[in-house]
Amino acid sequence: MTTPLANQQVRLAKRPETTATREHWHFTSEPVGEPAERGVLVKVLSLSLDPAMRGWLNDARSYIPPVQIGEVMRAGGVGRVVASKNAAFAVGDTVYGTLNVQEYALVPQDEIKRSGLARIDLKLGSIGQWLNVLGMPGMTAYFGLMDIGQPKAGETVVVSGAAGAVGQTVGQLAKLKGCRVVGIAGGEAKCQWVVDALGFDACIDYKAGEGAVRAGLKAHCPKGVDIYFDNVGGEILDQVLAKLARKARVVICGAISQYNNANSQPGAGPRNYLSLLVNRARMEGMVVFDYADRYPLAIAELAGYLKDGRMKSKEDTVKGLETFPETLNKLFAGGNFGKLVLQVAED
Amino acid sequence: MTTPLANQQVRLAKRPETTATREHWHFTSEPVGEPAERGVLVKVLSLSLDPAMRGWLNDARSYIPPVQIGEVMRAGGVGRVVASKNAAFAVGDTVYGTLNVQEYALVPQDEIKRSGLARIDLKLGSIGQWLNVLGMPGMTAYFGLMDIGQPKAGETVVVSGAAGAVGQTVGQLAKLKGCRVVGIAGGEAKCQWVVDALGFDACIDYKAGEGAVRAGLKAHCPKGVDIYFDNVGGEILDQVLAKLARKARVVICGAISQYNNANSQPGAGPRNYLSLLVNRARMEGMVVFDYADRYPLAIAELAGYLKDGRMKSKEDTVKGLETFPETLNKLFAGGNFGKLVLQVAED
Repeated sequence: MTTPLANQQVRLAKRPETTATREHWHFTSEPVGEPAERGVLVKVLSLSLDPAMRGWLNDARSYIPPVQIGEVMRAGGVGRVVASKNAAFAVGDTVYGTLNVQEYALVPQDEIKRSGLARIDLKLGSIGQWLNVLGMPGMTAYFGLMDIGQPKAGETVVVSGAAGAVGQTVGQLAKLKGCRVVGIAGGEAKCQWVVDALGFDACIDYKAGEGAVRAGLKAHCPKGVDIYFDNVGGEILDQVLAKLARKARVVICGAISQYNNANSQPGAGPRNYLSLLVNRARMEGMVVFDYADRYPLAIAELAGYLKDGRMKSKEDTVKGLETFPETLNKLFAGGNFGKLVLQVAED
Repeated sequence: MTTPLANQQVRLAKRPETTATREHWHFTSEPVGEPAERGVLVKVLSLSLDPAMRGWLNDARSYIPPVQIGEVMRAGGVGRVVASKNAAFAVGDTVYGTLNVQEYALVPQDEIKRSGLARIDLKLGSIGQWLNVLGMPGMTAYFGLMDIGQPKAGETVVVSGAAGAVGQTVGQLAKLKGCRVVGIAGGEAKCQWVVDALGFDACIDYKAGEGAVRAGLKAHCPKGVDIYFDNVGGEILDQVLAKLARKARVVICGAISQYNNANSQPGAGPRNYLSLLVNRARMEGMVVFDYADRYPLAIAELAGYLKDGRMKSKEDTVKGLETFPETLNKLFAGGNFGKLVLQVAED
């Protein structure tokens, strides 16, 4: 196959100390290659933009290696197979995998597994939903809530980032499991949507002024908080710790309020952590990749809820690879409303 | 029964903002009463002085109500029954219970259960050991390590306050369960004792200068820390969090470094708590009273270890009720070496 196509790519130019801005990225173009033996060429349709991406920019090994200077920025996404020398993938297949921030992903045989490349079925959900409820955010919500949180009917579940990708599924799933669910989100519009459209029992607007979170927790969690699913860290984590119920579980999924700290230094820790002692509670971290073997079961359950309307999803889709630097930053400013998706090409 | 005996008592005079000093206590004397129907009169022999006592002085409900102004200070202790109108207790019985900081404890029928009054067998251990390995510190060590920590042979266990009441039993028990055990204690003498007498694999002297804990953890925990049993909180907790192994368990038992903070405000939280996320680790609080039903089993196991010499114990015994204010503060200055016991009367 010869191809005249150009592949636009976004590469890491230098590491940000705080917020990554346009100067930290380098836009390049190279000819689209053709797959080697058992390789696959995928046209990128939509990419998932996630808080964790900020961590990959720091020169510090976390649960995944950092993106190197000059490398194409890492991102999961949905694409269409446009050339294949691999029997497992046919031209026209829709696939999910680590496709990275570019227009075309050439995946050699020896990287197919590492990139998690897998065919997906658009009958189960839209491209946006495959990056949201049926993708990593949904898997994170599912296993974080079910395995770490272990909800029981009647318990009170609080989730921060409630209108975000993970939060929206955590809350709806907790409702389906019979819990009382209180979201925390930024702004009236998000809070109203979380209650009206998703059916949360209440939502606290953390931007509603000093003391709003404390007052909201007091009003909406009269018996304390049995499960707190934390996506944000910082002051909100501290406020919820102060309201834990006996034997509470705090799921540490992320800390978006901390990710842009200077030199990736940790900020203040949760001052109220001794609430864990008084309340015999636990705080536990989770990384979604550990549950890969069980993704199919979770996807089947969640797709069922989407199909019968018991679960809704919201994606915030921004078009154009060239908007990547600013679009990513919407996450850290709380500017996205729903799962943030970068549409690279129309389907 | 008439008695000319005077009962010396130590009462809370006012709440301390930071360290409790002599001005916060009030020494009183009153005639010893005689037991009412089904009540018991106990002569106090030795009292347990514990870090948790500092928390009871704050006007804040914790897992146990605060001591009220004017009340006799709460303390667990061992005593001898000197008068009884209760069939369950005979004159001459040695008992453990909440006897409080005084020479005689008059326990009415309706307070026998609440005070945990129970006969103890001095053939299983000395009075000091009944306040240490066979008492609340030993129970805390046993259930914190076994139930929350869940040690597996070959794992690395780190315990702070290693020469203290809880720490000495945690470390020896972890060794008996086949773990590699690293203590953290203040000063060379304690560290040497923990290694030489108790058989810990290593002990880090946190007073050995800037960076001592970090360097010690690096040297002695090459595979990271699987279980951290935390008695101290503060900077040491943060250092250990940075060294957690995958799937680590952090047992939050206490935070002695924080208990004298002004106005009982929490100090800085553990900045490195996101290590829980990266390492899929958990941090869990425990309160020993929850395990009361299982004390007898734990006492039987630990008494067996004491008897056959597989476990040692060390008490730091100070004589005289009048020394109570200064003796209590040894705990917070790290001045005690072993379980701190206040001997009120010779047996």
